[in-house]
Amino acid sequence: MASRQGGGPTTRRLEALTDGIYAIAMTILILNLRAPGAPITVEALTRALARISGLYVDFGISFLLLAFFWVVHHRQFEHIERVDGTLLWINIISLMLVATIPFTTSIYGGYRQLTPAAWLLEGNILVLGLVEYFQWAYATSGHRLVAADLDPRHIAMARRASLIVPLVSLVAMAAAIAVPAYSTAVYLMVPLLWVALSRR
Amino acid sequence: MASRQGGGPTTRRLEALTDGIYAIAMTILILNLRAPGAPITVEALTRALARISGLYVDFGISFLLLAFFWVVHHRQFEHIERVDGTLLWINIISLMLVATIPFTTSIYGGYRQLTPAAWLLEGNILVLGLVEYFQWAYATSGHRLVAADLDPRHIAMARRASLIVPLVSLVAMAAAIAVPAYSTAVYLMVPLLWVALSRR
Amino acid sequence: MASRQGGGPTTRRLEALTDGIYAIAMTILILNLRAPGAPITVEALTRALARISGLYVDFGISFLLLAFFWVVHHRQFEHIERVDGTLLWINIISLMLVATIPFTTSIYGGYRQLTPAAWLLEGNILVLGLVEYFQWAYATSGHRLVAADLDPRHIAMARRASLIVPLVSLVAMAAAIAVPAYSTAVYLMVPLLWVALSRR
Amino acid sequence: MASRQGGGPTTRRLEALTDGIYAIAMTILILNLRAPGAPITVEALTRALARISGLYVDFGISFLLLAFFWVVHHRQFEHIERVDGTLLWINIISLMLVATIPFTTSIYGGYRQLTPAAWLLEGNILVLGLVEYFQWAYATSGHRLVAADLDPRHIAMARRASLIVPLVSLVAMAAAIAVPAYSTAVYLMVPLLWVALSRR
Repeated sequence: MASRQGGGPTTRRLEALTDGIYAIAMTILILNLRAPGAPITVEALTRALARISGLYVDFGISFLLLAFFWVVHHRQFEHIERVDGTLLWINIISLMLVATIPFTTSIYGGYRQLTPAAWLLEGNILVLGLVEYFQWAYATSGHRLVAADLDPRHIAMARRASLIVPLVSLVAMAAAIAVPAYSTAVYLMVPLLWVALSRR
Repeated sequence: MASRQGGGPTTRRLEALTDGIYAIAMTILILNLRAPGAPITVEALTRALARISGLYVDFGISFLLLAFFWVVHHRQFEHIERVDGTLLWINIISLMLVATIPFTTSIYGGYRQLTPAAWLLEGNILVLGLVEYFQWAYATSGHRLVAADLDPRHIAMARRASLIVPLVSLVAMAAAIAVPAYSTAVYLMVPLLWVALSRR
Repeated sequence: MASRQGGGPTTRRLEALTDGIYAIAMTILILNLRAPGAPITVEALTRALARISGLYVDFGISFLLLAFFWVVHHRQFEHIERVDGTLLWINIISLMLVATIPFTTSIYGGYRQLTPAAWLLEGNILVLGLVEYFQWAYATSGHRLVAADLDPRHIAMARRASLIVPLVSLVAMAAAIAVPAYSTAVYLMVPLLWVALSRR
Repeated sequence: MASRQGGGPTTRRLEALTDGIYAIAMTILILNLRAPGAPITVEALTRALARISGLYVDFGISFLLLAFFWVVHHRQFEHIERVDGTLLWINIISLMLVATIPFTTSIYGGYRQLTPAAWLLEGNILVLGLVEYFQWAYATSGHRLVAADLDPRHIAMARRASLIVPLVSLVAMAAAIAVPAYSTAVYLMVPLLWVALSRR
C-alpha cells in the first residue's frame, strides 16, 4: 500500500492534517452566512435572502476553489514519496493560507464594492496557488521527493496546471479595479482552462 | 485491503475529506443553539429552554438526515473502486450541499412559520439527495467505477433506496404549504421506508 | 491488520466519523469562552478572567469527560469486528449526544446557580453514558459482533466500567438539588472508580 | 505497516484524534478575525484592516506554533510503538491545551498592551511544551514504549529539542514585563534554535 500512497508515516499524517484543515475551512465558510433577525414576515425573509444569495455565491466560489486546491494537493501527493523538513513547512504555510480563506471571503462579502476587499480575497487565492506551485516545483526538482522514474512530461504538465489559479487570480485582480463586485466571476475560467490543459 | 475498501489513494483521501466535512457540518449544527442572556432565574431559563427545544428538534432532524446521507455515501463507496474526475466533482458538489445544511437549518429555526423557510431547508435536503442519487447512477452505469461482477440487483436496489429522501422531501415541501412549522416531521417516514425497502 | 482493528471498511469509516465528531465537539467547547470587551485595563482584564476561570473549569470537565467517552468507544471497537445497522445507529445517536455537549456546557456556564441547568448538562452526560453502555451490551450479547473467543470476563468488566459515568451522573444530579454550581465536582470520582475497577 | 507507524490500533486512533484536534484548533483561530461593520468606505476598510493586521500576526504565530507542536508530536509517534493509560492521558491533556490556544490568542489580541494577557498566551504555550516534553520523557524512559533498539542519542536529542519552546516562552514572558505587545516576536527564535540543534 505504501508505494501507491506515496510514502511513509510522515506523508500519511501530513495528508491527515491537510484533509482536516481543508474540510474545516470549507465547512466554516458557511458561518459567514447568518439568519437575519426579526421581524418574522415573508417580506423580511425574502429581502434577507436576496442579500444572503450574494454571500452564498461567495461561499460557493471559495468552497470550490478550496476543493480545487485540495484536488491539486492530492494529485501531488500521489507522486510525492518522501517528506523533508522544507516540504513539510511549505505545506504548513499553504494550510495557513487555506485557514485564512474564510476570513478574506467574509471581508469580500461585506465590502464587495471596494477594490481592496476583492484584492484581499483574490490575493489570498493567488498566494495559495503560488505556494502549491512551489511545493510541486520543490518536490520534483531533480526528482527530489518523487519516484526516480516519474515521467518528466507529467511533472511539467502538473507544474503548468498549478499555475492556472495564480494566473486567473491576476486577471481577477485586474478586473477588480473596475468592477470589484463581479471580479470573482473570472474564476469560472479555472475549470475551462483545466479541461483545456488536460485535453492536450 | 485495497479491494475491500474499494480502491486506491484517491478513494481513500476522498473518503477522508468526506468524513471530515460530514463530521464538522453535523457538529456545528449545534452552534445554532445559543444560551439565552440574563436574567438568571429559573423562570427565564425555563422559558428559554422551551423555545430552544424547538431548535433542538431541528438540530436532531438535520443531524440524523446528514448521518443518513453519510451512511448512503459509505455504502456507495464500499463498491466504488475507482474515482474519475466527474465522480470527484459530483462528490464535492454533494459536500458543498452538506456544508450548507447548518445555514438552512438556522433559517428554518428562525422562520419556521413561513413556507419559504421550510422550502429552503427541505429543498437543500432534496438536492443533496438527488446528487447522491446521480453519484450512484454515474458510478454504476455500465459498471463504470464498480467491480464488473457487482450484482445488478444490488445496483438497482441501492438506486431505489437513494430516492427515498428526495421523494420524502417533496412530500415535506407540499406539507410546508399548509403547516411549515411541522413539515419536517414528514422525515420520520425515511427510516420506515428504508426498512420497508430493505425487507423486500 | 484487519483483525487487530476489528474489522472491515464499515468499522474503519465509522471510527473516522466518530474521531472527527469527538475532536470537533471537544475543540468547539472553547468557543464558549469569549474575550471580554473594553475597557483595556488590568483591572477589567483581571475581573473578566476571574469570571472566565469558572467557564474554563467547565470546559475542562466537559473536555475530559468527552475524552473519557472516546477512550471507552475506542476500547469497545478494539473488539467489535463487524457493524450491523443497529450498532451503526446506536453509534450515531451517541455522536448526536456528543455534539450536544458544547450546548449543554454553555447553558451550565451561564446558569450554574440553577438546578435545571446542572441537570441539563449532567443529564446529557448520563444519557451519553447509557448509550455507550447499550452499544457494548448489544455488540457483545451472544458475542453478536465480537470475536467468538472474546473472554466473557472481559465483556462483563467493560460493561461494568461503562456504568461508572451514568452512576456518577446520578450522584451529581442529586448534588445539584442542593449545590448546582459545585455539582460537577462529583465527576472527580470517575478516574478514581475507573482505577479501582481496573485494579480488581 | 504497523512497525513503521509505530503501533497498533490505539496508536492509530490516538493519532487520528490528535490530528483532528490540531486541525480544528489551527483553523478556528481565524474566527478571532471578524469583518468590521459599516460604513462601507475605503477609509473605514483600510482602518479596520490596519487593526486586523495585528490580529493576523497573532493568528500566524499561534498557527505556526501549533504546527510546530504537531510536528514534534508526529516525530515522537514515529518511534512510540505502544500506548499505555498514562501516555494516553498525557496526550489528552496536551490536546486540551491545544484547544485552549484559540482562546488565549483572542485574549492577547484584545489586550496586547497588558502583561497578564501576554503571560496567558505564552504560559499556555509554555505548559503545552512542557507536557510534550514529559510525554517524550515518559515514553522513552527505560525505552518504556519505544523500540528497544532506539538510539539513546536520538532520545536525548529529541528531549533537548522539545525544551526549545518552553525556554523561549520563558524569555517571551520576561520580555512581556516590559513590552507585552511585542513579546511574541521572541518566538522567531524557535526555528533558529531548531535548525541550530538539528545541525549539531
